[in-house]
Parts: sequence; structure tokens; C-alpha cells
Amino acid sequence: MVNSQITVPSATLADIDTPFLALDIDKMDRNVARLSTKLAAMGAAIRPHLKTVKSIDASNRILASKSAPATVSTLKEAEELAAAGFSNLLYAVGIDPIKLPRVIALRRQGIDIAILLDSEFQAHAVVKACTEASTDIPVLIEIDCDGHRGGILADAPKLLQIAAILEPRQLLRGVLNHAGESYSCDNAEDLIACAENERATAVAAANNLINAGFDCAVVSIGSSPTAHFSENLSGVTEVRAGVYVFFDLVMAGIGVCQIEDIALSVVTTVIGHREDKGWIMIDAGWMALSRDRGTARQKVDQGYGLVCDLAGVPIPGLIVAQVSQEHGQIAVRADSDAPLPQLPIGTRLRILPNHACATGAQHQQYHVFSSQQSEARADSQLQQFTVSAVWPRIKGW
Amino acid sequence: MVNSQITVPSATLADIDTPFLALDIDKMDRNVARLSTKLAAMGAAIRPHLKTVKSIDASNRILASKSAPATVSTLKEAEELAAAGFSNLLYAVGIDPIKLPRVIALRRQGIDIAILLDSEFQAHAVVKACTEASTDIPVLIEIDCDGHRGGILADAPKLLQIAAILEPRQLLRGVLNHAGESYSCDNAEDLIACAENERATAVAAANNLINAGFDCAVVSIGSSPTAHFSENLSGVTEVRAGVYVFFDLVMAGIGVCQIEDIALSVVTTVIGHREDKGWIMIDAGWMALSRDRGTARQKVDQGYGLVCDLAGVPIPGLIVAQVSQEHGQIAVRADSDAPLPQLPIGTRLRILPNHACATGAQHQQYHVFSSQQSEARADSQLQQFTVSAVWPRIKGW
Repeated sequence: MVNSQITVPSATLADIDTPFLALDIDKMDRNVARLSTKLAAMGAAIRPHLKTVKSIDASNRILASKSAPATVSTLKEAEELAAAGFSNLLYAVGIDPIKLPRVIALRRQGIDIAILLDSEFQAHAVVKACTEASTDIPVLIEIDCDGHRGGILADAPKLLQIAAILEPRQLLRGVLNHAGESYSCDNAEDLIACAENERATAVAAANNLINAGFDCAVVSIGSSPTAHFSENLSGVTEVRAGVYVFFDLVMAGIGVCQIEDIALSVVTTVIGHREDKGWIMIDAGWMALSRDRGTARQKVDQGYGLVCDLAGVPIPGLIVAQVSQEHGQIAVRADSDAPLPQLPIGTRLRILPNHACATGAQHQQYHVFSSQQSEARADSQLQQFTVSAVWPRIKGW
Repeated sequence: MVNSQITVPSATLADIDTPFLALDIDKMDRNVARLSTKLAAMGAAIRPHLKTVKSIDASNRILASKSAPATVSTLKEAEELAAAGFSNLLYAVGIDPIKLPRVIALRRQGIDIAILLDSEFQAHAVVKACTEASTDIPVLIEIDCDGHRGGILADAPKLLQIAAILEPRQLLRGVLNHAGESYSCDNAEDLIACAENERATAVAAANNLINAGFDCAVVSIGSSPTAHFSENLSGVTEVRAGVYVFFDLVMAGIGVCQIEDIALSVVTTVIGHREDKGWIMIDAGWMALSRDRGTARQKVDQGYGLVCDLAGVPIPGLIVAQVSQEHGQIAVRADSDAPLPQLPIGTRLRILPNHACATGAQHQQYHVFSSQQSEARADSQLQQFTVSAVWPRIKGW
């Protein structure tokens, strides 16, 4: 394991002050291998979206090499990854022209960073910045496949107009889309259809460019749900996914993973009881769990997170029903007849997150442990889940 | 102004890379003065809850002296404030016994830090820890006044039982409550009633202790809504409030402040348009704004924030309607017939937050500026809102 910082050797999930973020490295490894294996068998490259992990240590573990493709959501991530030696980056948020000097600075360091845009205005700004700096920034044009967010339609005249603006400097590298609406699915049939729509739309846009005489080397698609359910990647050069590394309750609700696959959790401590209300009070509120309520619109509403024991086994019926800044209120979910368990003050619990990206973002670092190693030696102190490393998270923009 | 770090002298709200957190120091000063003046006139001390600002620089500005009372939500805040010389602290989250060594370490540094509890279990743990360490930790007993969160009822037998456990070491300093349900109010009559209920409950608990022969030096109450609407503080020794320093859209919806009082905003840039959808895309998503939807249950749902121009003036009808990690989608609110304005790519906007505590928590620092100074010199470069300081935020636990 790549350890950037080792904690006190004896630290375990049972004795670090709560709340803190725990990362089960075995589950993460398994999740990473699952998608990598699938996509390798289909002949497509994977370009992991590091916005979920935001960690150099995790990137070292996820990416096969320093030159392996990666996606970032901020230039801060790009800069920190570049400083750590990673050289093949895609900044997948539509470019704000004022940020181009930072992109140019990265390219001058030898980083192959590409950017995203979906307007003639941005294309002109990129061409101007590149001309002034006597450099080139490869560009992907964002394509909309499901009306979810930004991008232009695959058959929009604007596609060719943008390509024409980029042509004199040959900046166009390809097209990119993202099936954001796949997060609203909850069955395999819809997910397979979402995946095929994402693929077909991106390929159609690429073909429109090629038929008009432009190059389109890259066809980049992806979301964690579609990446796992795609049955055909013909015409696609790379697949992006982010949350697949950790998974979360939203992904489990969609059907992309099982609860048991979730690698990220928040360790918390019972600090009180309201027997009259049916509440168990914990020291993890929204500051530790995030305000994300992504499962609220799913069939199973998991509140602010699913409550597990310290070994990560869900306790029947228990969710974090309410949060304030540093308080959580655990209760039995409304549709459960499970009893409220006896959990004395000081009991440690683990809360599985609705949305791993959002919960991770509330923390400064991961406490990494091996559940396999702990299980294998259930009779020893390792049962307490020794923390083998602390991985800092990349913060800010 | 106390500046811990000065940015590039020429930096303004118009040229720092977005998204970032902007703090209007004049509005903050006005908000702080408003409540301080009110409570001083009523003869009660204020113990600001620094969980909102989480900043040494802001604390220097809010607190009258290093020994002025302050409230914290984490021991990390307490430790950083102590290191900066603040010496009168209350950790207002029910104590997890495993954290007592950190409290004892602070007290040994000469910090008068008090803790909170609401169970006999915790009281025994505190007595044991104090006995073993030959030290004393002052304790407040948490009282519930509205069924919102933790605490015991003012007339619960447990109140006297806890006091009796603390008695041999004379650890009991007083009682504390918090009218969390005041956040659900939207009119002065209800807020006044909430405030009086909070006061009366805390005083009743204190009287029950005193009548049973215990000391109860401190009667600590407070929430930002009740603090502003209280008409009677008889029997109260101190009032806590946190978000009043910045205010936010939730507080405006409750009626505690006006939109114009909100001191905190996120500066963002337009990065695209979806004319077909009526969306303007910005580079502030939930990572910059938080997932807090506190106004969703209020009369006016402000989405993920109210959209203002760079001078902080709201643009009619515009809210952040949807967010993903680094994208926001601005739209005209459903009940407005205002037109979608023309805001070209590169336009800078400021987003007022639903919940200042949650939005602040997404950032590493504040960019501090003076709106008064900028307005006074509207003809000069200062109109661009020069950033006079960068204040780091306290992170973690």
C-alpha cells in the first residue's frame, strides 16, 4: 500500500476521536478491479474521475501508472496530481476563460491536460489564449445526451461551428458526454438503455465531425451507472467513472452495487439517548456526513446514512434520521418494525453515505484500513481494524 | 482589521479564480453589533457560537477580548482558539468520554473550557476522569425545551441525579438549552413565544437544581432566531448564537434578517448556457454551495441559493435551481415571470447561501472585502471590491 502518512501504529477504528472518514481498502480495490476488468474485456480505456477520491494516494492505487488517463473536476486537482507526477489529465468542467493561464502553465510543465467547452465564445477564447501563449490546449466538445446539464446536441450546427473555430490551431481532440440521468434509474433495462444512448450520442457527434472533415480522436463517455451496465462500447475510446471506486447508498439504490461493496463510511460515537423520542444521538452531523439526501428520491430512503456496527455490518432498520452541524439522530426507519437497539454511550458505529463524493468532501483525510486482514484475524487485536495509513484529500479550487 | 494573510494587493472579487467564498466585512460588523447591542441593553452576556465562522480572524473581530465567552462545536475549534489565546470556551456538544483527555489538556493550559452532558453515564465518566487526573471540568447539563434534539426535561428526576453525581467534585456549573424548533418559525409572534419558552425552560431547570440545594451559576440559552426576538431574559446569564454573524437565506425566511444583511456569498462565473432549457451554467456546484436546502420547507424556496450580481444585488427571480459537484444551473424560479437575463460566459455572480454554516464549511478560507468602501468610491477601481484579507477556516475535529 502506498502510505503518505502513517498514523500512530496502534491506531484503530476504535480509538481515533470521532467523527472520521474510514476507507476499507479491500472493498475499494475490489470495486476498482471490477470496472477495470469489465472495460478491458470490452476494449475500452478507463479514465477514472478523481473528483470522488481527491487524493494522490488513492490515485496511485487506482491508476496503473503516472501516465494513465485520469479526469479531474478542478484545476486544483490537476495541479496537485501534476505535482505528484500524473501527466494525462482531462478537466471535465466547461472552461472559464479566466482559468486558461493555469491550464497553459500545466501544459508547459509537460502535462497532457485537455479541457471541455460547449460554446463558440469559449472556443474563441481558447484559440486566442493559445495564440498569445504560442501553445496548444487540446479540446473536447461537450455533447448533451439526456438534457441533464450542459453540452450541445449531437446534431446541432454549433458542433461544426465550434470545430471550425478550433481548426486553424488543430485544437479539437474529440467529444465528451455524461449520462447524468442514469442516476434516476433503478433497473437494469433502463440502465442498459441509458448506457446505449450515451454511447450512441457521443459516436453520432463524432461521426458528424468526421463527416464534416474534422478529426475526432477521442470519444469519451461515462457515468458510474452506465459504465457498469454498458453492453456495447463500439466507437468509444474511453469511459469515465468516479464514484465506482467507493460506491454509496445512491449507487446501491440504482442497482450498481450491493450495500456490502461500499468502501467509505464515517465512524461515529453514541453520545446520548432520547428514549421518549426513539432517538440515539451520535457525534456525526452534517459536518461529517454532508447534507446530501440523494436517496430521498429512491425507493429506499436512507435518511442521512445507513447505520452499521464498527465491523461495517448494517444494524436492521437503523438510519440517521436527522442531522444538525455536529449531531446526528439515529432512529428506526418508518417502514421497519425492527426494535431500537441498546447502544450505550461510547458505542462506535459506522455510517454508510448517501453520496460518497459529498461525504468525502466534508473531511480532510481518509483513515485507511483492511477489512479482510481484520476478518482473517478475528481472534487478535486486528479485529479492531488497525488504520494502516492516513491519506489527505485535495481541497479547494 | 485583523489580517492573518494578505492576498496579492490587487486581488478583487473580479479576478480571483472562482468559485470562492466572499465575506462582506461591513455587513458582518453590522450583524455582530446588532445582537451585541440588543443583549447588552437587556443585561445578558453573549457567548457567540464560533461553529459558524470557524476562524481565528473572525473570532478576533467578533469577541471583545481574548477572555470573552465563546462557544465551539468541536474540540478542534477549542484547541485552535486556545492556541490563539482565547480562554473562555464552552464545547456545546454532548461529551463523548473518550475525548475527555483533550478537554483536560486544555484546562491544564489554563483554558476555562466547560462541557455539556445529559446522562448519568457521562457524569460518572467525567467525575472518574477528573478524579484520575486530579483536575476539574465544569459541566453544563443539557435541557430540552422543544423536543428538537438532545437534553433532558427541566423537571426530569434525572436532572437532580446528574447533579448529585457531579456534586462531590463540585463540577456543576449550570444548565444549557437551545430552541432548535425556532428554525421552523416564520413570524414574530411565534419567535417571541419560542424565545420565552427557551428562557422559561432553562430558568425552571436552574430553579429545580437550586431548590434541591445545588449551585447553578450559569443559565445558557440561545439560537439566532430566539436571541433576536427575546423580550425577556430574566434569570438568564448568557445567550448563544452563531449564524447571526453572517446570516443567510434561512434566517431571512424566518424573518430574523433581511436579504441585504447576508454577509457571506460564493463568487462564481458563468461557464455556459442552455437556452432550450432556460438554464445558465455556473462553476459553483454543491462543492462550493453545499447540499443544504434549508429554504425548501420555507414559504420561499431559494433552491441552492439566490443569485446576485457581483455587487451583491439580487437579480430578479434568479436562483440556483440544480447543482452537481462543480456545476450549478441557474434558472428563473417557477413562481416568477422575470425574464432569464443575458449573462455572457465569464460574467461573475454572487450566490447567497441557504445556510451560512454549511456553505462556509465547503471552503478553506474567506476572501474579506468591504462593500461600504467599494460603494463610497464607486467611480474608482475599488468598485471591483478589493479583497483586503484571506481568513483561513478551522477544519476537522
